[in-house]
Amino acid sequence: MRQTASAFAPGSIGNVGPGLDILGLAVAGRGDTVTLTLGDGGGIVVADPGHRELPTNPRRHTAAIAAQAVFATIGFTSGVSLRLQKGLPLSGGQGGSAASAVAGAVAADHLCDARLDAATLLQCALTAEDAVAGRHADNLAPSLLGGLVLVRSLEPMDAIRLPVPMGLRIILVHPNQQLHTRDARRVLPGSVALGVALAQAANVAAMVAGACLDDAALFGRALDDRIAEPARAGLLPGFTAAKRAALDAGAIACSISGAGPTAFALTVDDGTAASIAHAMVTAYAAEGVAAEARIADVDLQGARIV
Amino acid sequence: MRQTASAFAPGSIGNVGPGLDILGLAVAGRGDTVTLTLGDGGGIVVADPGHRELPTNPRRHTAAIAAQAVFATIGFTSGVSLRLQKGLPLSGGQGGSAASAVAGAVAADHLCDARLDAATLLQCALTAEDAVAGRHADNLAPSLLGGLVLVRSLEPMDAIRLPVPMGLRIILVHPNQQLHTRDARRVLPGSVALGVALAQAANVAAMVAGACLDDAALFGRALDDRIAEPARAGLLPGFTAAKRAALDAGAIACSISGAGPTAFALTVDDGTAASIAHAMVTAYAAEGVAAEARIADVDLQGARIV
Repeated sequence: MRQTASAFAPGSIGNVGPGLDILGLAVAGRGDTVTLTLGDGGGIVVADPGHRELPTNPRRHTAAIAAQAVFATIGFTSGVSLRLQKGLPLSGGQGGSAASAVAGAVAADHLCDARLDAATLLQCALTAEDAVAGRHADNLAPSLLGGLVLVRSLEPMDAIRLPVPMGLRIILVHPNQQLHTRDARRVLPGSVALGVALAQAANVAAMVAGACLDDAALFGRALDDRIAEPARAGLLPGFTAAKRAALDAGAIACSISGAGPTAFALTVDDGTAASIAHAMVTAYAAEGVAAEARIADVDLQGARIV
Repeated sequence: MRQTASAFAPGSIGNVGPGLDILGLAVAGRGDTVTLTLGDGGGIVVADPGHRELPTNPRRHTAAIAAQAVFATIGFTSGVSLRLQKGLPLSGGQGGSAASAVAGAVAADHLCDARLDAATLLQCALTAEDAVAGRHADNLAPSLLGGLVLVRSLEPMDAIRLPVPMGLRIILVHPNQQLHTRDARRVLPGSVALGVALAQAANVAAMVAGACLDDAALFGRALDDRIAEPARAGLLPGFTAAKRAALDAGAIACSISGAGPTAFALTVDDGTAASIAHAMVTAYAAEGVAAEARIADVDLQGARIV
């Protein structure tokens, strides 16, 4: 048992192309940090929620819910104070809620020196993600494990860490527009034609093959989403033009990050990353949408104690 | 230009588990052999169709259609005589029509020393498969390339040869029952719920990960078909019991081969293959269905000149 424990978890791209709810990629740089400190009484007190719009009620705060799930798993009932340092935007499709949940779970595990396995930590974090963003682990799993992760199943939890194509760089473009996750989910179809389902499966599988075989060209051409992107593109002014601009500038792929509105593009040619970012921001601007770009590596490490 | 050319193509399992229309596995041992010989006149004459139930009309004979597609691609118009030696059953889900088509295309390519690339040969063979079994290449691609193959797309043709888990052995069980491909396809749903589509995609992708990362346990647990197998199992008396028997006997997976009625099971423990085969045959027998089993390796070579 420690007096205090801090954990950092990186942001991530969920729904990587056709991998709706099942494929995620950790993004280096920004992330959320949770610090837990032993305190008086029982249960968790949220001493710093991380942002003025985040709740101080521990039953509604993502990091606290995940930490509490870890404590419940190991039977820990002492008082704990939680502070969140929020490095990711509250919404926007950069895996912010997942990073808070993962950091909360990892910090709680470290505080108690419980050494829970990854599947159990993911289950604990999923309790939190489910409460705020929906029951999927495509942001949680890369935020915990780093790199590219396929979530085969939630029950039982089966998250598979995959290799990442060599030299992959991420261009994240955040347009100044709102798209609530619930609206982004509402436009998803309840069912899909068999042919669409099979094409989507083939593309996700081919992305996995491209990742495992270090074939970035395959990874890029398979990043072709027939379900979520067509349904959501209409809600995101400028996205279609920005995607075209990214591909014209040399990106191997471009799609919506998570439920949006953030868009992402990928390249393995480091020289093109800046021009892809510039082309996308310019394309958004031409449709009257201000946008900010960030170029990042893949985070290969995942959540860590800090 | 040669006087004569012969090519052999192995049988295969199509629809490997959740990989409906997109994932196939070449099976060592039996296959079809096509021999082409320069003759008089123009066009193809089917001198031996390979089986009394197969047509001698070259426009309806799978191997001849595929050979003709190769000849058309390269502008070859001389007379050719075709003989098929049929090593695979006419129907039953062992990739017989695909093997004939691939052998026809490869023999035609060799006769003319054309050296067409694999994608073009697959397109030519697809013309034939489309005429007799439907527009899918999950049997054609492994029959041509060997091993485990993911067909990402037909237009453009994009077939990805994958590694195979070490030591994988196949148990093929052919029950004495009929299931026409058109009936097997008729029971497939026209659309699927989004959750089913995502689970199917996750499982195909996880099979690819298991194959690439040499994780046979993952390959096996991901071989979980939520679309075709549930729809077809009811048409195949004894299958459900045989699958249970296979898994109880140590198989890592069991499903329907292609459109059936052949069932297949997989193991990486060579000592269990015979007992899995016995358990499956016994389970079919208990439901009044006679069945024959064959144990085979994966064919890693694919079609070859003989």
